Amino acid sequence: MKTTKLMIKAHPLEPFCDSEKLAAAIAEINICAQACTACADACLGEKNIAELVGCIRSDLDCADICYATGAVLSRLTQPSRELLRSLVQACAVACSVCAAECEKHASMHEHCKLCGAACRSCEKECRNLLEVIR
Amino acid sequence: MKTTKLMIKAHPLEPFCDSEKLAAAIAEINICAQACTACADACLGEKNIAELVGCIRSDLDCADICYATGAVLSRLTQPSRELLRSLVQACAVACSVCAAECEKHASMHEHCKLCGAACRSCEKECRNLLEVIR
Amino acid sequence: MKTTKLMIKAHPLEPFCDSEKLAAAIAEINICAQACTACADACLGEKNIAELVGCIRSDLDCADICYATGAVLSRLTQPSRELLRSLVQACAVACSVCAAECEKHASMHEHCKLCGAACRSCEKECRNLLEVIR
Amino acid sequence: MKTTKLMIKAHPLEPFCDSEKLAAAIAEINICAQACTACADACLGEKNIAELVGCIRSDLDCADICYATGAVLSRLTQPSRELLRSLVQACAVACSVCAAECEKHASMHEHCKLCGAACRSCEKECRNLLEVIR
Repeated sequence: MKTTKLMIKAHPLEPFCDSEKLAAAIAEINICAQACTACADACLGEKNIAELVGCIRSDLDCADICYATGAVLSRLTQPSRELLRSLVQACAVACSVCAAECEKHASMHEHCKLCGAACRSCEKECRNLLEVIR
Repeated sequence: MKTTKLMIKAHPLEPFCDSEKLAAAIAEINICAQACTACADACLGEKNIAELVGCIRSDLDCADICYATGAVLSRLTQPSRELLRSLVQACAVACSVCAAECEKHASMHEHCKLCGAACRSCEKECRNLLEVIR
Repeated sequence: MKTTKLMIKAHPLEPFCDSEKLAAAIAEINICAQACTACADACLGEKNIAELVGCIRSDLDCADICYATGAVLSRLTQPSRELLRSLVQACAVACSVCAAECEKHASMHEHCKLCGAACRSCEKECRNLLEVIR
Repeated sequence: MKTTKLMIKAHPLEPFCDSEKLAAAIAEINICAQACTACADACLGEKNIAELVGCIRSDLDCADICYATGAVLSRLTQPSRELLRSLVQACAVACSVCAAECEKHASMHEHCKLCGAACRSCEKECRNLLEVIR
């Protein structure tokens, strides 16, 4: 999160919301994207893969949406509040869907447990952001 | 669009909505993503770049969101309607914002005119999809 | 490909290589990215998923690399030949690896057959580009 | 990096190279991707934008390539060494090109200084990885 915070501070324009909350959200989104990519692949390596199909699918969706959301939130120049709100909303939904899938397998697979927790943290940060992007 | 249609037909599961509309939406989303990436870069090459800052920014956002949306829509296995709806909604907003920016410069720059038209087609396909994903 | 071609023509700067070959490469890369994303998901929906693990993995890699390569090739402003060559080389390798995986299952799954063909076309366009980016 | 390390440890398969080096590389790649996205946007917000065109362009390329490389490196199932080597090589080149651009403006713009440093760290981690992926 250190570089992200410094980049926000070094930007010539003011962020569209509180800097600390923005940096925290970008950090959690990037952790979540990486965790989802890794969880999808870890599921591919499991013997009970047939039971993990829904988890892999929601991992891939969540990773794609988190990458896009993290990039859009990293831009402070001439932001559209409407776009930010609808994208962060979609990201929160993706995290919620993926967390629910991962949590089904959390007792059996540590990677699902970790990924579910990363999704819940990310969902929370997205919902925090929605409070401050107006 | 040909390969996209054939891939939907070859999938072992039924799509979550009408195949023709889905293939058309994925095709327009991918055209829009490429046009936005190219328009952002064409703006970078223009002498009046200072006037095109808002256009570059919305091009980059729209490209990121279209890539993610195109990927998610290409998956037919265990879809979440709620996720699909919120993401396609965000994509329609991104296209609408970007189209409005591009249209400001359409009379001066052919790439903005083309990109604005691609965004409008994509926005329309996204709104068509929202009608059928329930 | 139509919009891609028009966008290259509308760009204020000359492309770093022959326009026709560039537009053809970008088009094949985008078709390949979508086909790989769809094939990974179609494999997830198959009953013999355990035999398709290598195919899913190489589909996901190929899609990620194709999206990045398509975006980089869409930029004509101040290109780095060294970067372009190493990225297009990596894309050709990703397509070759993925095609080889898909071809193993082509007789059993139409989506693998279609995706393998898309990867081969894309690999060929990448190799054609490497001849002209100097 | 904490979640990334734990995800590697929780994966059912052994990584294709030393875990510590892999986790460090993924972490630097993700920091670099975010920094490049933010630097491109910060450049868009500067008054001397016309002098920053090359920096914006290389930032965007580097971000795209880092996102793809970070995703591919997060997968441990049935890796292709040839693909990994050519992609990590392309990522090192992208970081080197972008660092050189950013360093030109480092004395004037703090965001370029920070981004140049992130690119150099990422380039170094990529070159470290190339030593161990054989």
